[in-house]
Amino acid sequence: MSYSEITSQDIEFLVAQCGADRVYCGDAINEDFCHDELGGINRRPDVMVEVLSTDEVSKIMKYAHDRNIPVTPRGQGTGLVGASVTLHGGIMLNLCKMNHILELDEDNFTLTVEPGVLLMEIGAFVTEHNMFYPPDPGEKSATIGGNINTNAGGMRAVKYGVTRDYVRGLEIVLADGKVMQIGGKVVKNSSGYSLKDMIVGSEGTLAVVTKAILRLLPMPKKMVSLLIPFPELEMAIDMVPAIIRAGSIPTAIEFMERDVILAAEEFLGRKFPDNSADAYLLLSFDGNSIEAIEADYEVVAHACLAAGALDVFISDTEERKEAIWSARGAFLEAIKSSTTEMDECDVVVPRKRVAEFVKYTRELQKKFDIRIRSFGHAGDGNLHIYVLRDQLSQEVWDKKLKDAFECMYSHARELGGQVSGEHGIGYAKRQYLVESIGESGIELMQNIKLAFDPQNIINPGKVAFS
Amino acid sequence: MSYSEITSQDIEFLVAQCGADRVYCGDAINEDFCHDELGGINRRPDVMVEVLSTDEVSKIMKYAHDRNIPVTPRGQGTGLVGASVTLHGGIMLNLCKMNHILELDEDNFTLTVEPGVLLMEIGAFVTEHNMFYPPDPGEKSATIGGNINTNAGGMRAVKYGVTRDYVRGLEIVLADGKVMQIGGKVVKNSSGYSLKDMIVGSEGTLAVVTKAILRLLPMPKKMVSLLIPFPELEMAIDMVPAIIRAGSIPTAIEFMERDVILAAEEFLGRKFPDNSADAYLLLSFDGNSIEAIEADYEVVAHACLAAGALDVFISDTEERKEAIWSARGAFLEAIKSSTTEMDECDVVVPRKRVAEFVKYTRELQKKFDIRIRSFGHAGDGNLHIYVLRDQLSQEVWDKKLKDAFECMYSHARELGGQVSGEHGIGYAKRQYLVESIGESGIELMQNIKLAFDPQNIINPGKVAFS
Repeated sequence: MSYSEITSQDIEFLVAQCGADRVYCGDAINEDFCHDELGGINRRPDVMVEVLSTDEVSKIMKYAHDRNIPVTPRGQGTGLVGASVTLHGGIMLNLCKMNHILELDEDNFTLTVEPGVLLMEIGAFVTEHNMFYPPDPGEKSATIGGNINTNAGGMRAVKYGVTRDYVRGLEIVLADGKVMQIGGKVVKNSSGYSLKDMIVGSEGTLAVVTKAILRLLPMPKKMVSLLIPFPELEMAIDMVPAIIRAGSIPTAIEFMERDVILAAEEFLGRKFPDNSADAYLLLSFDGNSIEAIEADYEVVAHACLAAGALDVFISDTEERKEAIWSARGAFLEAIKSSTTEMDECDVVVPRKRVAEFVKYTRELQKKFDIRIRSFGHAGDGNLHIYVLRDQLSQEVWDKKLKDAFECMYSHARELGGQVSGEHGIGYAKRQYLVESIGESGIELMQNIKLAFDPQNIINPGKVAFS
Repeated sequence: MSYSEITSQDIEFLVAQCGADRVYCGDAINEDFCHDELGGINRRPDVMVEVLSTDEVSKIMKYAHDRNIPVTPRGQGTGLVGASVTLHGGIMLNLCKMNHILELDEDNFTLTVEPGVLLMEIGAFVTEHNMFYPPDPGEKSATIGGNINTNAGGMRAVKYGVTRDYVRGLEIVLADGKVMQIGGKVVKNSSGYSLKDMIVGSEGTLAVVTKAILRLLPMPKKMVSLLIPFPELEMAIDMVPAIIRAGSIPTAIEFMERDVILAAEEFLGRKFPDNSADAYLLLSFDGNSIEAIEADYEVVAHACLAAGALDVFISDTEERKEAIWSARGAFLEAIKSSTTEMDECDVVVPRKRVAEFVKYTRELQKKFDIRIRSFGHAGDGNLHIYVLRDQLSQEVWDKKLKDAFECMYSHARELGGQVSGEHGIGYAKRQYLVESIGESGIELMQNIKLAFDPQNIINPGKVAFS
């Protein structure tokens, strides 16, 4: 694909639409906008514009379409696969200032928001109104627009599902500037192809999301967490199907190993409730009656102890829960701070294959003589595996990372897994997506991309097209 | 679009693939295959072939693609919008004999099935294994392939969601015969555009589903139903947001009016537990502890009584539940048997607009002097409204039906609703889809259709293209 270069005329157009104080060029663009959180790619946008309204987005898209200029939408840039980097230059649409909560509809249990609202702001707002927005990705400073575009998952997916399940409707701006409302405040919808589900998880490549109607639930009245130490990871992971079968589905089932806990303790400067065991399951249960929750978790606690768990720590106070979950929330940052550079593999495998996969990454650690750390969602099979550079030279690091990743993605395929559980494909994982779904799968995705965006101007170089 | 006519050579090809006893032509094709349950359109397939395997489907699609012959997949033909009628002639792919349950994976909570397995067979099979497949459309003799293709909803959508939420993976055959695996036994997936979600609800127009991996849940241990009479429908519907806010979300919240109950009593030849009130809410609650369920429904029962409900009937025995739910399940057939012909409007509106919409249909009944009956899912805003022909002449019926439908779909749009909650668009509701999503929406859907099927040979004349 070849695109038009940005000209001074283009800048004038953007300034005329948005004012000079919201249009940034060259060195005036902060270095943060040249990359995301972990993508390993770096490209400065030719121009970055802070948009405030759907109308502005529409006018800019129409202009870019007419002039064949690539446009890359961006939220907080907390992605991990380079999806919000302007690979082909052009315009970066910064949506962070479209950050208003527009409506809480308490009868229909929906919240209408602009895309730049942060996940933590949604959490705080709905809690105040005794409502609950279940998706719970670790990165609370991400925008909801970004969450929708990666179909972000998070820790409560075991019981509550992922972002896709909580998007009822969207307002989108198409490549040619047309504004479209899809879905709505309705609970069911079988009215033609689900455009809404095509946009969710499309990583900003099909259209620009300018508004979202989210589904809420009533806030569960009680939540209890269980931290269960095991002598080894396999034993912990093997419990997961039995835990789910026991009856009430836990809100979360996370696994963690001692070395990651130690890293988190060092990073946070405070102790985890226990660090004596090799492996842990962290469970939470929620509901409306403490008696019902107790009945649920007692069955699980006994089953774990009978299967060889070393203990069961029950956290039912805010303080104790906070101690555990804040450590869990700090794992990524803790691992990151322990090394010079790292890259992540976010595969998802069938639930019962998790232990097998983690064991395999330990073998790779030895095979390639490189540090690998992992934690993740035992309840939904989504792993976060970090390959750490430490003191390796650029050349050795590039080679080892590539070799280790190829082994991991290939092994995940063999186990019936998928390339990404929740972080997406973006730029960084394209190769593995091609290997996973094959040429005909990629071709189909390319056709879908062109169905939305025939000139391929929205966020080119990601997902289906290199 | 123009297609090749079926020739004797084509028949020979099909016979060579499948054997003469599975290929039917002309009058040998049962009249049932010329229409669906309520579509009002009738067209005999040129040839109907009963397929037994993915390989057969693939070979037939490749042949049809090379020869430019339309192919319409079909399950049990229980649809209500003409989606499985061979509007442009050609080949009908009858998938009913691909009806094997292939695998129950108790660790991953998945069931792998062929598309011709009936919903009732899935229900019986998983119950035997103490598992639960939540989607619960009224028509239990539909195939799972049909359910997937309409994104069937059903009564448990309030708490559990719709078919889409229970499809983890699919095997599909594309227009050119390529076989593709999409999704899998994984709980989360952010690996490129969600092809799985594009196929779900596509009414057999994008690809042929030849296998499905369904998500199961553990079977809830207890279920209790509440039948709550109200002096008028508005009062009943107005309770719904409060019921959901009360805490635990009911499995189902149905509304019904006396005239529909009387029709069901007559149709079934047995009494409903109560028929003295004008309107009813029928709720169910499920869970693992009877105490927790009791706590949940007691709050709801008191709230309803305080708001003017006439009584609360609690059904916790199998027998009493059966009496209520079998009547509810017979509503469609009961209404159908009370008239000569009928057509259905399956709009979905925001939950709090349900009463307003039903009231509007009563006004239309007077305005057009035509009998209109309705019932539906108060918990998710999905209404089933039947316009009855009774003794009207063809000409008067056609006119009145058209006028009444235009009013209803237009009013649903004004209320923020969608054309179909669960029955789909097919052939019969295309016009209303166009009015609802506009020219640019339809154009986008057409582009998506062509991304999958550039020659438009799979089930032409439905959803996006007339």
